[in-house]
Amino acid sequence: MTAFLRLGAPGAERPVLLADGRHYDLSSVTGDIDGAFLAGRGVDRARALLAEGRLEELPGAADLRVGPPVARPAAVLCIGQNYAAHAAESGSPPPTHPILFFKHPGSIVGPYDAIERPAGADALDWEVELGVVVGEAAWHVEEADALAHVAGYLVGNDVSERTWQRSESGGQWSKGKTAPTFCPLGPWLVPADEVDPTDLRIWSRISGEPRQDSSTGDLVFPVAALIADLSRYVRLEPGDVLLTGTPEGVALSGRFPYLVDGDVVEVGVDGLGAQRSLVVPV
Amino acid sequence: MTAFLRLGAPGAERPVLLADGRHYDLSSVTGDIDGAFLAGRGVDRARALLAEGRLEELPGAADLRVGPPVARPAAVLCIGQNYAAHAAESGSPPPTHPILFFKHPGSIVGPYDAIERPAGADALDWEVELGVVVGEAAWHVEEADALAHVAGYLVGNDVSERTWQRSESGGQWSKGKTAPTFCPLGPWLVPADEVDPTDLRIWSRISGEPRQDSSTGDLVFPVAALIADLSRYVRLEPGDVLLTGTPEGVALSGRFPYLVDGDVVEVGVDGLGAQRSLVVPV
Repeated sequence: MTAFLRLGAPGAERPVLLADGRHYDLSSVTGDIDGAFLAGRGVDRARALLAEGRLEELPGAADLRVGPPVARPAAVLCIGQNYAAHAAESGSPPPTHPILFFKHPGSIVGPYDAIERPAGADALDWEVELGVVVGEAAWHVEEADALAHVAGYLVGNDVSERTWQRSESGGQWSKGKTAPTFCPLGPWLVPADEVDPTDLRIWSRISGEPRQDSSTGDLVFPVAALIADLSRYVRLEPGDVLLTGTPEGVALSGRFPYLVDGDVVEVGVDGLGAQRSLVVPV
Repeated sequence: MTAFLRLGAPGAERPVLLADGRHYDLSSVTGDIDGAFLAGRGVDRARALLAEGRLEELPGAADLRVGPPVARPAAVLCIGQNYAAHAAESGSPPPTHPILFFKHPGSIVGPYDAIERPAGADALDWEVELGVVVGEAAWHVEEADALAHVAGYLVGNDVSERTWQRSESGGQWSKGKTAPTFCPLGPWLVPADEVDPTDLRIWSRISGEPRQDSSTGDLVFPVAALIADLSRYVRLEPGDVLLTGTPEGVALSGRFPYLVDGDVVEVGVDGLGAQRSLVVPV
């Protein structure tokens, strides 16, 4: 398995290829892991250079901060209530169409960065999600062709403030989804041809206790169906991040308390790695 | 009055300063009219160079396409139902909090570009709006300080497909707001210190017939209140575009037909210029 990462301080991350536990510097191949890199078959080029022994290992990689595995996207698209059991715990029937909303891309942080709880965020919740990174622009694509537009997959946490989401924006959800640090991504971008997204275990733990534990096989609208549907309404761009929805087991259900300062939020998808985020006040 | 424009082919626009009817090339001052330019006091620098006679006129400016007056922003934030009479024609009471949703920035086009009506878009509507461009990042700002974060103002059209907005996304509006060309911006970015946004006439016409005709004085949440409120939920970034809501007089009211191919959509805000967009099939 190979995976793409971005290592370094926020805003100064360096592109890296991870293979067999070794970190290879991609700085000579691309300035960043971004839409242009992904649309330009950068994944294939990087893997070819690796196979030819032409990439250098990055010294000290293990000591560097892990950033989000893709550079700032043009958009973060999110799907709501895309697991039937989560829709039910939210008080809704399963959706008849994919439900689209957006997060501000400024909410993105790395997989081990803190989740900063803003003043007044007293109903802070977690949502582990399978994330899709667009490789090739998608506008009016058929479901059978949709997965060819995917560059790779990653773990996302659609951090949500439920009061803001539900009661302070006339029913439009974005207001509770989009504060800084409300979108941890990573640690890895795994190339699409190395992942079968149709049955991956997806889970979360809060301060060591299990919360969510499901499979992407339970998605109401699987990845190909989502891309085909969305592409009738929005032109997906290379580098865009699509978070596909969260399974049951969030605090909104009433079964668990909301996040408080000091909580440790762990979320993961098998094969895509795991995040660990400390909740801190800001 | 001065105004900032971007002239040239899509994706290759050149930054321009308009003053006393003359177009001055800003290419030597900045690569683009973007968040970095606006955050770096670019507006003041450009006006100072103009006053010193150090800017060159751009030959042939009148023959160039007019692009959106700001480069691709990190986000397009939109406010819903922010005029009481429009909320009423949409079947809703005035909101108690600003209603936030997003458009994909890929929906932005210039003020005279076509509005491309996608297949199946049979309930296509117009929404003239006062647009705010962020100059300085805003996170937890007070209303009294909010306008200091504004770089300038522009005309926006929040083009909307009502069936997609209301019936195909579980009540989340973005799906009907975000196809390519659904966000004409411009023609001008007028610096904040040259505009009083509190009482500007705002209007639209469809194929010559009047539709909307109100004043920004009727905003439920005026610009300063919006910025202060939003900044508790999202960090507004330099270059972000905030569309502040539309007044009554849209097709959703039932009083007017939806847009059809061949319609000419004119929208304007006094002092900020006017758009003219032809509706075409795509």
